[in-house]
Amino acid sequence: MRPFKNRDIISIKDFTREEIDYILEKSNEMEVHYKSDTPSMLLAGKILGSLFFEPSTRTRLSFESAMHKLGGRVISVSNPEFSSAAKGENLSDTISCIQSYCDVIVIRHKLEGSSMLAAEVSNVPIICGGSGTKEHPTQALLDLLTIKNEFEKIDGLKIGLAGDLKYGRTVKSLAYALSLYNNIELYFISPPLLKMRDDVLKSLNDSGIRYHEYENVEPILSKLDVLYATRIQKERFPDPSEYQKVSGSYRFDKKLFERLKPKDTFIIMHPLPRVNEIGYEVDKMPYARYFKQAYYGVLVRMALLALVLGKI
Amino acid sequence: MRPFKNRDIISIKDFTREEIDYILEKSNEMEVHYKSDTPSMLLAGKILGSLFFEPSTRTRLSFESAMHKLGGRVISVSNPEFSSAAKGENLSDTISCIQSYCDVIVIRHKLEGSSMLAAEVSNVPIICGGSGTKEHPTQALLDLLTIKNEFEKIDGLKIGLAGDLKYGRTVKSLAYALSLYNNIELYFISPPLLKMRDDVLKSLNDSGIRYHEYENVEPILSKLDVLYATRIQKERFPDPSEYQKVSGSYRFDKKLFERLKPKDTFIIMHPLPRVNEIGYEVDKMPYARYFKQAYYGVLVRMALLALVLGKI
Amino acid sequence: MRPFKNRDIISIKDFTREEIDYILEKSNEMEVHYKSDTPSMLLAGKILGSLFFEPSTRTRLSFESAMHKLGGRVISVSNPEFSSAAKGENLSDTISCIQSYCDVIVIRHKLEGSSMLAAEVSNVPIICGGSGTKEHPTQALLDLLTIKNEFEKIDGLKIGLAGDLKYGRTVKSLAYALSLYNNIELYFISPPLLKMRDDVLKSLNDSGIRYHEYENVEPILSKLDVLYATRIQKERFPDPSEYQKVSGSYRFDKKLFERLKPKDTFIIMHPLPRVNEIGYEVDKMPYARYFKQAYYGVLVRMALLALVLGKI
Repeated sequence: MRPFKNRDIISIKDFTREEIDYILEKSNEMEVHYKSDTPSMLLAGKILGSLFFEPSTRTRLSFESAMHKLGGRVISVSNPEFSSAAKGENLSDTISCIQSYCDVIVIRHKLEGSSMLAAEVSNVPIICGGSGTKEHPTQALLDLLTIKNEFEKIDGLKIGLAGDLKYGRTVKSLAYALSLYNNIELYFISPPLLKMRDDVLKSLNDSGIRYHEYENVEPILSKLDVLYATRIQKERFPDPSEYQKVSGSYRFDKKLFERLKPKDTFIIMHPLPRVNEIGYEVDKMPYARYFKQAYYGVLVRMALLALVLGKI
Repeated sequence: MRPFKNRDIISIKDFTREEIDYILEKSNEMEVHYKSDTPSMLLAGKILGSLFFEPSTRTRLSFESAMHKLGGRVISVSNPEFSSAAKGENLSDTISCIQSYCDVIVIRHKLEGSSMLAAEVSNVPIICGGSGTKEHPTQALLDLLTIKNEFEKIDGLKIGLAGDLKYGRTVKSLAYALSLYNNIELYFISPPLLKMRDDVLKSLNDSGIRYHEYENVEPILSKLDVLYATRIQKERFPDPSEYQKVSGSYRFDKKLFERLKPKDTFIIMHPLPRVNEIGYEVDKMPYARYFKQAYYGVLVRMALLALVLGKI
Repeated sequence: MRPFKNRDIISIKDFTREEIDYILEKSNEMEVHYKSDTPSMLLAGKILGSLFFEPSTRTRLSFESAMHKLGGRVISVSNPEFSSAAKGENLSDTISCIQSYCDVIVIRHKLEGSSMLAAEVSNVPIICGGSGTKEHPTQALLDLLTIKNEFEKIDGLKIGLAGDLKYGRTVKSLAYALSLYNNIELYFISPPLLKMRDDVLKSLNDSGIRYHEYENVEPILSKLDVLYATRIQKERFPDPSEYQKVSGSYRFDKKLFERLKPKDTFIIMHPLPRVNEIGYEVDKMPYARYFKQAYYGVLVRMALLALVLGKI
């Protein structure tokens, strides 16, 4: 009856398509609580432990807002150096204590696999708030919700993922999640140095997903339903001049859109923060959805909190 | 009917005298909620985004307390280095996302004009929590509320502003606000190097406000109704020996008050933190109001939050 | 009728045995609120000022959780450098302002005697959250609650305190508190350099408490009801090789327990964070209570907050 009660949210790979669709459906049902003028009491008396041992503003505030929107309470860590971590304590002891202080925990930690480790020792459900370079499951869910709500479907869409496909954790989670849908076509657009990893490509092949690799968005922009842009970090390039050469190709601005003429229904997304991947003048074009993603993020996190606490 | 609903609070200069009087009246009405033993639900279901990208304890906690006193919730940033600001994101993108997480935002940021910038992109009302060297509108309002409640009027008072009049943002906002009242007489007491700026003096002239400039409080202390002391920073003086020479003249202690005999109704105020501008023994003298200002600050911020959220 | 209303909680030495027993009794009554599915409103409308000017995760989150569990609200400082402390303000001014923002304050500050100083200026009750090297009264209370609930008594128990007895503040507070009970026998186990201070021993003598000093747990482990382990800091030893020599003797692991055969009812406690004083494999042995202490800590802090606010 409450299939997500006490479940940990560690990796998007732990979910079936049916489960994801269920989460997205519940996320949209949260809109009533989000917009209601009378405060929700759905999670009244419940406490979220919001443990961000690595930098985050948006994800942390989004989770905390979601908890408050449902009437719950929040205890928060947002400063790693200034905590018992600085006294040399290991994460597993920290979680073993903090689980007595709250009913659900969201955690971001630099340690690879930290959320899974936390889930192993914790009696309360653990939600991964972004872990190392690999996982960011709630980002993938909010990306999916954005696409689904904007197109009223996910099946059959042509979706471009651009920028740093090798190290970016959001694109990997999203590519995996999209591979659960039917008739999806993926376009990977990146410099050769930052191509999608072979293991991800192999797993897409195994799922029968069609994908194409490009170094530039020009040949295919007009075909795309969605362009998902991400940041390319200078530090990834051994030679800074290499970065200078390629970075311009992963910057999307008004001129580009005017020249390449995307579909009427085309949207551009970005996990944010952006540096200069999307021109500021694009914010006012009808394609921009990257700020609306922030809104969908609150809905997804409201749903997840209510689900793992067994309240929906 | 709700004249302040959705309004931004960026600068004290945006308000007429009538509007300020209205805010002060509403602030005093908040005392019922402040002192009530049954918790207020006036802002239940509303979330304050408390974004302090620059150091603050008092202003941040005062706003957060005000929100809680009215039954609202708070999400908070108090650590600039440890946030997406550190990843190079610009303020306007940060606000464009965070506005989805809350119903009203208070912001302090080192960038001059940051609150106005935030107000331009935000769909939720923005309140300036102190911005660069120029604005601190809620401090000016709480200063006015202190004066009004202690004297049952503001018109006709003789008010001294002492210390760093050149760089201090609180004195500028307060001088402007006082200039809206009738028959005010201002006394500017500062070392020549830190005199009130010409543009402020010019605007006082234009408003027909009488003011006098002194280097020392001695000749006029006995005439004053209010002395508003502020901190003088050593770093303002190119030559440290210059600082040593003048700083003693802007320190107000028991001896000084015993010698210069202020009026019975005289009060001394300070925006705090003080370093040594006011002797600690003065705390127990009948003149001290600088800690009571902190209390009035909560009332003002309760009123402003309720006003911009359209609940009063 | 409300004997703790408005009382400050500064030192465990301020309490009689009767008062401590009353607090422990009230702490156990808090379990109903802790476990209830309908949120408690006992402290609704009340605000806790949670002021941690020194590193803490556990104690801070434990107090904040306790306040939320009873329906109260929290304003929080967890970053000393990033606050008005950095502008040179003294603690007494900070407290004089913040008392207007909340109904009760918990404070941790590096300054010796900071809680007492805060209590002198504050109109709202002050609870010490750990102060310098001397006091941590709520830790002592939760330690007592753990012992009392596990044995259904405290009188008559044999309790070992191991590790750094010279500088550790938790062992001193606990030794004092235990000295209030009848027929207690204390075993102090430490390297000579870190022996319990003479003044503490003298005061135990004065109370007629039996105690014994050992350098090693081996001869007496099988007699103990409780072993309270604490961390030994390398930095205490002028010569690092000295540390290497002794540290192994204050590490308690499965092998040790299998060899020395503690009583069936034996428990091992630790104030945490541990570094390597207790082997991780011990967590699953029936003796481990150090994580359960964290749970009791919430109950104790719920009771204290409700007591000093006059609600129980």
